[in-house]
Amino acid sequence: MEFEREQLGNVITSIREKQPIVFHITNTVTINDCANITLAVGASPLMSFCEEEFEDILSFASSLVINIGTMDKQMRESVVKAGQIANKLGKPVILDPVGAGATKARKELVEKLLAGVHFAVIKGNMAEIKSIYGIQNSENRGVDSAEDLENGAEIAKALAKRYDTVIAVTGKQDIVSDGHRVAKINNGTPILAKVTGTGCMTASLVGSACGAVRDYFTAAAAAVAMMGIAGEKAEEHYSVGSGNGTIRTEILDTICNMTADRFMESENIELS
Amino acid sequence: MEFEREQLGNVITSIREKQPIVFHITNTVTINDCANITLAVGASPLMSFCEEEFEDILSFASSLVINIGTMDKQMRESVVKAGQIANKLGKPVILDPVGAGATKARKELVEKLLAGVHFAVIKGNMAEIKSIYGIQNSENRGVDSAEDLENGAEIAKALAKRYDTVIAVTGKQDIVSDGHRVAKINNGTPILAKVTGTGCMTASLVGSACGAVRDYFTAAAAAVAMMGIAGEKAEEHYSVGSGNGTIRTEILDTICNMTADRFMESENIELS
Amino acid sequence: MEFEREQLGNVITSIREKQPIVFHITNTVTINDCANITLAVGASPLMSFCEEEFEDILSFASSLVINIGTMDKQMRESVVKAGQIANKLGKPVILDPVGAGATKARKELVEKLLAGVHFAVIKGNMAEIKSIYGIQNSENRGVDSAEDLENGAEIAKALAKRYDTVIAVTGKQDIVSDGHRVAKINNGTPILAKVTGTGCMTASLVGSACGAVRDYFTAAAAAVAMMGIAGEKAEEHYSVGSGNGTIRTEILDTICNMTADRFMESENIELS
Repeated sequence: MEFEREQLGNVITSIREKQPIVFHITNTVTINDCANITLAVGASPLMSFCEEEFEDILSFASSLVINIGTMDKQMRESVVKAGQIANKLGKPVILDPVGAGATKARKELVEKLLAGVHFAVIKGNMAEIKSIYGIQNSENRGVDSAEDLENGAEIAKALAKRYDTVIAVTGKQDIVSDGHRVAKINNGTPILAKVTGTGCMTASLVGSACGAVRDYFTAAAAAVAMMGIAGEKAEEHYSVGSGNGTIRTEILDTICNMTADRFMESENIELS
Repeated sequence: MEFEREQLGNVITSIREKQPIVFHITNTVTINDCANITLAVGASPLMSFCEEEFEDILSFASSLVINIGTMDKQMRESVVKAGQIANKLGKPVILDPVGAGATKARKELVEKLLAGVHFAVIKGNMAEIKSIYGIQNSENRGVDSAEDLENGAEIAKALAKRYDTVIAVTGKQDIVSDGHRVAKINNGTPILAKVTGTGCMTASLVGSACGAVRDYFTAAAAAVAMMGIAGEKAEEHYSVGSGNGTIRTEILDTICNMTADRFMESENIELS
Repeated sequence: MEFEREQLGNVITSIREKQPIVFHITNTVTINDCANITLAVGASPLMSFCEEEFEDILSFASSLVINIGTMDKQMRESVVKAGQIANKLGKPVILDPVGAGATKARKELVEKLLAGVHFAVIKGNMAEIKSIYGIQNSENRGVDSAEDLENGAEIAKALAKRYDTVIAVTGKQDIVSDGHRVAKINNGTPILAKVTGTGCMTASLVGSACGAVRDYFTAAAAAVAMMGIAGEKAEEHYSVGSGNGTIRTEILDTICNMTADRFMESENIELS
């Protein structure tokens, strides 16, 4: 297992070396933060909503991040196609199913995406992941609600197998699984929830990592841990008068200054 | 009147306790700042432009903020409906009529909104509020231009009565009225105008407050004063080299650290 | 030439005095940064995507910045018309052809814009400017690839003449030419590339300058140098722990605090 742990530290090094172009079809709330965190980690962001250029962009991009946070008509009509082009070209696709399950329209879009696109990584909070877990069950068997499962690791493992993907569940403890391996990440702090877009930025880090590293499990686990570490560093500097304005700035700064060594010193990941 | 003053201080406490979900249909310039200020004050932001999910979102949201800053075809076609659903469900709707009167298209959208939706609070600068004031007059009587009125308080009072709403006019002195009560808020500083979106963020604070407090006059007055106080704190820290980058960060930080006590120490509100 | 150098320093003073309204039709990634840098330099930003109000806005705006970074259907259909209205009203139009040449859709939009609109300034990086340089050649003669030209100054000069415009090429050394005069700007630092939108913000500065100063060559040269100086100042403060979060804030702060004197002390421009 020590081999894998070292690989985690190498993810940041690989991103810096390969400088992957990360194509985002993402929400307009946090689109700037996603671009800046992608630059901070050493990759190159490219954002577009223009269906006519998806194929051109994907021909030279290294990965695709789909974030449905502010899905509108344009996105709902084009995003499945974008994922399919990426699949055809062999570029990893990351899904951030923001608010999946919160509304019928989001549930439908996520179902369409899961039916039509193969994802390298699906990253969401527990509510979003549970909502995805319920999709097949409600249609096929109506049983096995997520509550029946022992814990997040079981849900992540089962979903990863079902969709032949890596599942990353963010929460108090983050869980990443490819259906076989499981990483439980104890980095992080509740103050990350005080800044909008830390989830979206995590997906950008996953996209950056998957654009540079073939093992998407390792890529996703390292990326999720990076955001947790950035939160911890921000918390260290938290003092009277600090707030989410400062935290947001420090998250970017910490990712900018992340090295393999700093990552290995700070990571708190259980591998199994 | 001391009773009301205390209620003003309780607004921040109520937001922190109830953590209202504030649904924004807003502009893309300041959408990220609106999300972060909503988190800073203790509420939970939710942004969507997707008409198909408005009803679902409003079923669990606590309030709706409509900001027409970058209104496009999609927004102009869907936003009245959003307001009407909120009305039907009894959720307070806040209008930020950005640039009302500056263009014919904005004037028309504001007229449609005022005709079709009941607003809990309408917040704008004097030019925007005067533009709204002129709508009915030009149609019905062609008289009573805003200039005839003695001052901002009279305009706010008259408009609040006309639309059965709370009017919040921001400016050198901010004025809030429900048609009966008037709050004149002397907090604030011109440097707030150096940061884009301080007006939009004020509307998000009003939305957060109205999602937690039933008395929308008190909610709006407290929210407007909070932004003024945040500007004052930013100005205190203003030194050689500071600029609107730093001010923007400090506004969020100050709202993050706002408490009822700090609010009461800093507020400079005349109630009548 | 000393006369012109002094004029460069006067650009910032003119912006502060005239406070031009800079209408942006721009991308959603950096729209907030563009608004804040416009405020920082002393101008007034106005963003809209609503075709129906373009004429109204342009009637009172001082300049128009077109940035195609996240061009979508709406923008592609309306942006040429916006440029033509500005031309008709005599308002300078600035083009930031983000990613020109990277995709067929972008190339087509840039061609449509160049065919239908007269630009006061076209600002891009070398790849974008070379892509524009190739448009007429590939259609008319198929020769004279940009590589044939001695250097960036020759490309800028030739393009400026072809389109009767000012060309601003950003890079290690920035080059601005109106077809006759050339400014080579040695300000700047690679860390500017670590922050998303520094190119877009430069276009906003150019738009602010062209809204205040009639000589668009001088306006563009001063604006491009300002961003370079802002990067240098950010680099001075760069220390362990700093990153693109902090740099972004400092860019805005430096532009906020720019004066004609500070500009003249820091500018490193070769005029010829």
